[in-house]
Amino acid sequence: MPVYARYEFEGAAHYGLVDADTITELKGGLFDAPEPTGRSLPLASVKLLAPCELPKILAVGLNYRSHLGNRPAPNVPGIFLKPTSSIQRPGGPIVIPEGALDVHYEGELVIVIGKTLTKATREEAIAAIFGVTCGNDVSDRNWQRGDGKDLQWWRAKGCDTFSPFGPYIVTGLNYADLALETRLNGEVVQSQRTSDLIFDIPEVIRFISQWVTLVPGDIIYTGTPGETRRMKQGDVVEVAVEGVGTLTNPLV
Amino acid sequence: MPVYARYEFEGAAHYGLVDADTITELKGGLFDAPEPTGRSLPLASVKLLAPCELPKILAVGLNYRSHLGNRPAPNVPGIFLKPTSSIQRPGGPIVIPEGALDVHYEGELVIVIGKTLTKATREEAIAAIFGVTCGNDVSDRNWQRGDGKDLQWWRAKGCDTFSPFGPYIVTGLNYADLALETRLNGEVVQSQRTSDLIFDIPEVIRFISQWVTLVPGDIIYTGTPGETRRMKQGDVVEVAVEGVGTLTNPLV
Repeated sequence: MPVYARYEFEGAAHYGLVDADTITELKGGLFDAPEPTGRSLPLASVKLLAPCELPKILAVGLNYRSHLGNRPAPNVPGIFLKPTSSIQRPGGPIVIPEGALDVHYEGELVIVIGKTLTKATREEAIAAIFGVTCGNDVSDRNWQRGDGKDLQWWRAKGCDTFSPFGPYIVTGLNYADLALETRLNGEVVQSQRTSDLIFDIPEVIRFISQWVTLVPGDIIYTGTPGETRRMKQGDVVEVAVEGVGTLTNPLV
Repeated sequence: MPVYARYEFEGAAHYGLVDADTITELKGGLFDAPEPTGRSLPLASVKLLAPCELPKILAVGLNYRSHLGNRPAPNVPGIFLKPTSSIQRPGGPIVIPEGALDVHYEGELVIVIGKTLTKATREEAIAAIFGVTCGNDVSDRNWQRGDGKDLQWWRAKGCDTFSPFGPYIVTGLNYADLALETRLNGEVVQSQRTSDLIFDIPEVIRFISQWVTLVPGDIIYTGTPGETRRMKQGDVVEVAVEGVGTLTNPLV
């Protein structure tokens, strides 16, 4: 499976293909046919960036039964938006912002869209998936649904650093059945397979595209399983997706 | 006051400065020092585009007392996000999408941000305002708060064509006290001054920037006054801001 990364080396950003401990630099963007520049580097020598540049972030709430608690299962995917300013790179800090009282991890499978999609069929939705990666839909429960509840989730889900994703985008995986695991300071705190999604990946994409046009580079957080916990300064949170790798971020 | 437009001519997009019936083509982007290319065109000969390219759209709900109805005044600005895929150009159609039952206009003053802004003071917020324009925060009330209410407003406020803005970006206006008027098929249906905003423009920007970094080109819909009505196919909706001009869009 091709494994794509975006990274910084000597002050410039590049896309590359990862093979074991080596990264092969590519000409052009993520959606261009992969053409090596001729330079390869040890993976450990580069600074990984969020694995793509992107126009917008969508996400699905309440998409695993294990996360519903006492809430009823939704009739349609519960879509929301996250601002691109909230992106954080692999290894970059998740910053607990002023006034946030209850900041939780949400480990998720993230889809990267590769084609423009409007009013898609299920088959068109499937064909528009470029690849998948790991994501953490960091959420302040107080602004989301506590005493400090906002009119909408702009701050609960959208603060700077609340959207880490990466480390790599992998194409060709069977995204319908991958293990998803979240670890807090090494302890496994979420563990589920993507086969347990209430609305599967093609349906989420098809549904969104009936009203909101998707374009190459858009990413979709597909929902988090099980229960979540408050994180605090000094914690380290990891989200691992089978076949992709591990997204690690410290809390500051 | 400099009046900026973005337009298409002979298949290419340009920024330009508008003076009466003439548009003067500029080299470079909206935030570069204005440098004419030497070509001027009759305004009527170009196709106006949305007046800037932009990373993200934010908006404020419930920001005029006249729009509150029986709802209490908010303690903090009620911010939400709109996807950039929902942008529509001046004159472009607002499409009533499949399943939308109650699509309303919301005439608003729109702010264009000119500087990167994180945790700004009020003075820094003022200094980061590039200019202002007209906007229509098109909203389906059923998906927003009716029987078909969604988990979040992604669809109520975010369908394709639900974010017309323009026609021009004007710099140097006193945005704190401008007349704002919406007309439906020529009838005035909203009329208020921006001096009636509950949270004024610098406060909205300062507040957002405490959690969400603003970058050049971001736009902010600042709220709608008074009551709104359902629009139907064949209607024409206009939003006029004193000193800016009129944003006109047909409903299809």
